[in-house]
Amino acid sequence: MPEPKRAAIVVGVGAERGLGAALARRFAREGLHVVVAGRTQTRLDQVAASIRAGGGSAEGIAADTTREADVVALFDRAFTGDAVPELVVFNAGNNVRAPIRELEAEVFEAAWRVGTLGGFLVGREAARRLVSLGRGSILFTGASASLRGRAGFAGFAAAKAGLRAVSQSMARELGPLGIHVAHVVIDGGIAGERLESRAPQRVAEAGEDGLLDIDAIAEAYWQLHRQHRSAWTQELDLRPFKESF
Amino acid sequence: MPEPKRAAIVVGVGAERGLGAALARRFAREGLHVVVAGRTQTRLDQVAASIRAGGGSAEGIAADTTREADVVALFDRAFTGDAVPELVVFNAGNNVRAPIRELEAEVFEAAWRVGTLGGFLVGREAARRLVSLGRGSILFTGASASLRGRAGFAGFAAAKAGLRAVSQSMARELGPLGIHVAHVVIDGGIAGERLESRAPQRVAEAGEDGLLDIDAIAEAYWQLHRQHRSAWTQELDLRPFKESF
Amino acid sequence: MPEPKRAAIVVGVGAERGLGAALARRFAREGLHVVVAGRTQTRLDQVAASIRAGGGSAEGIAADTTREADVVALFDRAFTGDAVPELVVFNAGNNVRAPIRELEAEVFEAAWRVGTLGGFLVGREAARRLVSLGRGSILFTGASASLRGRAGFAGFAAAKAGLRAVSQSMARELGPLGIHVAHVVIDGGIAGERLESRAPQRVAEAGEDGLLDIDAIAEAYWQLHRQHRSAWTQELDLRPFKESF
Amino acid sequence: MPEPKRAAIVVGVGAERGLGAALARRFAREGLHVVVAGRTQTRLDQVAASIRAGGGSAEGIAADTTREADVVALFDRAFTGDAVPELVVFNAGNNVRAPIRELEAEVFEAAWRVGTLGGFLVGREAARRLVSLGRGSILFTGASASLRGRAGFAGFAAAKAGLRAVSQSMARELGPLGIHVAHVVIDGGIAGERLESRAPQRVAEAGEDGLLDIDAIAEAYWQLHRQHRSAWTQELDLRPFKESF
Repeated sequence: MPEPKRAAIVVGVGAERGLGAALARRFAREGLHVVVAGRTQTRLDQVAASIRAGGGSAEGIAADTTREADVVALFDRAFTGDAVPELVVFNAGNNVRAPIRELEAEVFEAAWRVGTLGGFLVGREAARRLVSLGRGSILFTGASASLRGRAGFAGFAAAKAGLRAVSQSMARELGPLGIHVAHVVIDGGIAGERLESRAPQRVAEAGEDGLLDIDAIAEAYWQLHRQHRSAWTQELDLRPFKESF
Repeated sequence: MPEPKRAAIVVGVGAERGLGAALARRFAREGLHVVVAGRTQTRLDQVAASIRAGGGSAEGIAADTTREADVVALFDRAFTGDAVPELVVFNAGNNVRAPIRELEAEVFEAAWRVGTLGGFLVGREAARRLVSLGRGSILFTGASASLRGRAGFAGFAAAKAGLRAVSQSMARELGPLGIHVAHVVIDGGIAGERLESRAPQRVAEAGEDGLLDIDAIAEAYWQLHRQHRSAWTQELDLRPFKESF
Repeated sequence: MPEPKRAAIVVGVGAERGLGAALARRFAREGLHVVVAGRTQTRLDQVAASIRAGGGSAEGIAADTTREADVVALFDRAFTGDAVPELVVFNAGNNVRAPIRELEAEVFEAAWRVGTLGGFLVGREAARRLVSLGRGSILFTGASASLRGRAGFAGFAAAKAGLRAVSQSMARELGPLGIHVAHVVIDGGIAGERLESRAPQRVAEAGEDGLLDIDAIAEAYWQLHRQHRSAWTQELDLRPFKESF
Repeated sequence: MPEPKRAAIVVGVGAERGLGAALARRFAREGLHVVVAGRTQTRLDQVAASIRAGGGSAEGIAADTTREADVVALFDRAFTGDAVPELVVFNAGNNVRAPIRELEAEVFEAAWRVGTLGGFLVGREAARRLVSLGRGSILFTGASASLRGRAGFAGFAAAKAGLRAVSQSMARELGPLGIHVAHVVIDGGIAGERLESRAPQRVAEAGEDGLLDIDAIAEAYWQLHRQHRSAWTQELDLRPFKESF
C-alpha cells in the first residue's frame, strides 16, 4: 500500500497573482499536492500548470462553492485515491459596497452565499473528512469588515461577520478533536491583479510594502498550519506596516 | 390636516408573554400606535386586542420577514394615512443548534433568512422611510451568539453576527442623518412562553430574577429610543444579575 | 428609628458645567442625597450649594482618590448616620497625550493613579459597603480609549483599559451578590467647561448636538441604576449622533 | 569596522524551563546574541550559560523592570559596542488573585508595576533605540485576562489590559516608522517550572499537549519577528487544542 499523499485544498483561486494562487504555491513548495478550486477552470488550469512547472504537484477543480453539491463533489475528488488533504483554506468572498437604502436584497444575499454559506459548506465538508484523521487545519480568510460594519458595507460586513462566527464555532467544537480552525483578518489592500485592475490609483499611492504582499500572507497561513497543537492561534490580523487602524 | 400619529413597528411578535408583545405594550403605554408584525395573524390579533383592551392603540399585520415583498408591504401599510412610525424594532430570530458536521445547509440558510436577511430588509425599509424625517430609532435584538460562535452554534452565531454587522453599518451610515440604530445583546434566558414550553427545567432552576424579565427588557428598548441624539448608544448588553459571563 | 436616607456618591466632580455635577444634579432630582467628591472643596461646595438651591440634598467632601486613606474616609463619612448610598459613580480621569518616546514615566504613572487606582479604590470601598445590603450600583466612566490604544495615547489608554478590566472583574464577582457594576464608554467630546476652555475651536465646529450633552449622559447613568436586576447592562457606549466611529 | 551584531533582548527570564528562557534559546538558534533580563542574576547566568553551551551567544543582565533607571541601564548595556538588538520581548507579569473586597491596594499596585509599568518602560526604551534604525520588533506577552476581567482577577486583568493598550498605542504609532509591535494572548497554562511547582494537579490533569509547550510559544514569537512588513500581525492568541474558550 502506497504512503498517503499529503495534500491541501485552496478554495477561491482566481488570478495567478492573487492570494489563492499564492497560497497554493506556498503549500506546493512544502511538498503538498494542491487542489486549487474556483469558478473558472481555465484559470485554475493555469495556476496548476504554473505550480507543476515549478516542480510542484497541483490540479484544478472547478466548483461553485455556493452550491452544496459542488462542494461535496470537490471534497470527494480531492480525497480520492491516496490523497489525504491536511490543510483546507477558504479564501472566497466579494466585497460589495452600497448605501443601505440602495442595497438590493439580491446583492445582500449574493454576498452571503459567496462569503458565508460557501465558507460553511467548505468548512463542514473539511470537518467531515478531517475529524476521523484527528488532525488537519481549516483556515478562513477574513477582512477588517469581519470585525465591524462600516457605513456602506452592510452586505460585505454581514457576510464576513457570519464567516467569522462559523470559524469560531468550528474552532471551539473541532479543536478538542485535533482540528485547527483559524481565521485570518486581512486588513488592507492586497497587492495583486484584482486591485491593480479595479483600483490602480490606490496601488500607485500605496508605496513600497504599503499593500499586503500575497507571498507574505501565504507565509502566515503556512505558519498557522505548522503550529504545534499545544499552541494554536484562532485569529490573527495581517496589515501593512503603515496601514492606519 | 390632522396631526401625524406617532407609531412604532415591532417585527417578531409571537406569544403574548414573549418579548415582542412586551415591547409593543411598552411602546403603547407611551401613547404610540403599535404595529405588531409576525408570521401568525391570530397571535398578532390577540396581542393587538390585548393592547387595545388596556387602552392602547395597536394592529397586527402578518408578514414573513424573509420575503422582501412582505416587508415592503408591511412598511407601506404601517406608514399609511397619518401614521408616522418613529421606532422600529427587529426582534425575530430562531436559535438552532447542531454539531457542525450534522448541520444541514437548509438549516444554516433558514437561520440566516430569519435572523440576518429579515433584519436587513426591515432595517432597510425603515431607513428608506425614516431618513426623510431626519429622526427615529431602529433597534435590533441580538444575543450572546452575536459576539462569538460557540461549539454547536455555527448557524445561529453566523446569523446573529451578520445581523450585528448590519446594525453597525447602518448606525455609522444613518447616525449622521439623525437615525438612531442600536443593537441589544440579550445574554441569558428570557422568562416567557417560549422557554417555559421548550425548557421548563431551566426555568425552574433559574430562581427569582434569574431569567430576563420581558418588561425589564422592553424598558431598556424604550430608554434607547428616548436617548437624546447627543448621547446615543449603539450597543448594550442585558443579562440577569446572576448570569455567568 | 428613622428611615434610612437614600444616597449617592459621585467621585470626580469639578466644574459646575461638568459631567460630575450633572450626575449629582440628576440623582438629587430623584430625591437622593448626593455626596459630591473631588479634589477642590470650594468647587464641591458650589456644586452642592447649587443642588440645595434647586431643592435637592447634597454635600461636598474633598478627597484625593489616588490616596487609599482619602477614599476610605470619604466612604466612612458618606455612610454616616442614616445615609445609605445605593449608587456610586467613579467619574475621575485625565486624558494625557504624548508620543511614546516622549512619555515620561511620571506622567504614565499619574494617569494610572487617577484613572485606574482611584477607580479600584472607589469600587472596592463601595463593594465593601454595598454587598451586605445586597443591592446598589457602581458605575464607571470610560472613554473610547478604554477599548483601544491609539497613537499618542499609551498613558491614557492604559489607564482606561485598566479601569474597564476592574469594572468587568467586579461585575462578574458582585453581580450574583446583587450589585450592579457597569461601565459607560463615552465616545466623543463632552459639552462642558473643560472642553470650552481647552478646545474652544472644537466646540465651535461641533455644531448642534455634536458634543455629548452632560444631562443626556447623566440620564443614561440614571437609567442604568434603575435597571431591574433581571436585565442588567454591563457596558454601553454613548456618542453624538454624528460622531464618526 | 566590524559588522553589527544582531541581538535580541528578552525581559522576564526566570526558570530554565520557563517561557523567557525558551524565547532566548529560540532566538539564539537563529544566530542572534541574546540578552536575558530578569530579577535574579544567578538564574540569568544559568540560562545564558546553557545557551552558550548549546553554541549560542547570550548574557544575563539583572534588572528590576519596575524601576526606570534599571530599564534604561539594561538597554544602554544591551546596545553597547557592535550589538544592535532587533527584537525585544517583554515577558514579565505575575498573576494575582483575590476577591475584590480583599484585594489590597499594594497588591493591586504591584501587579501594575510589574505588568504594565514595566512593559511601558521596556517598550519605550526599545522604541527610543529602534526608531532610528527604522526596523525591529517589540513583542508583549499577554494573557486571556488581557481581554476581559474575570471574578477574582481585578488586579491581574487591570495590569494586563493596560499592557495591551500600551501595545496597541505603540503599534499604531511605530508601525509607520518600521517598528513591528505585537501582543500575544496566551490562553491556557504553560508547561513549565512555574506551573509544576504551583499547580502540579493541573499539570497532571492536562494530558498530552494540554498545556502550552514553551518551545511552541517561542516559535510563534519568532514567526512574528520574521513577518514581512507588508503583512504584520498586531495580536494573536495561543492556546492548547483542547482548551475551552
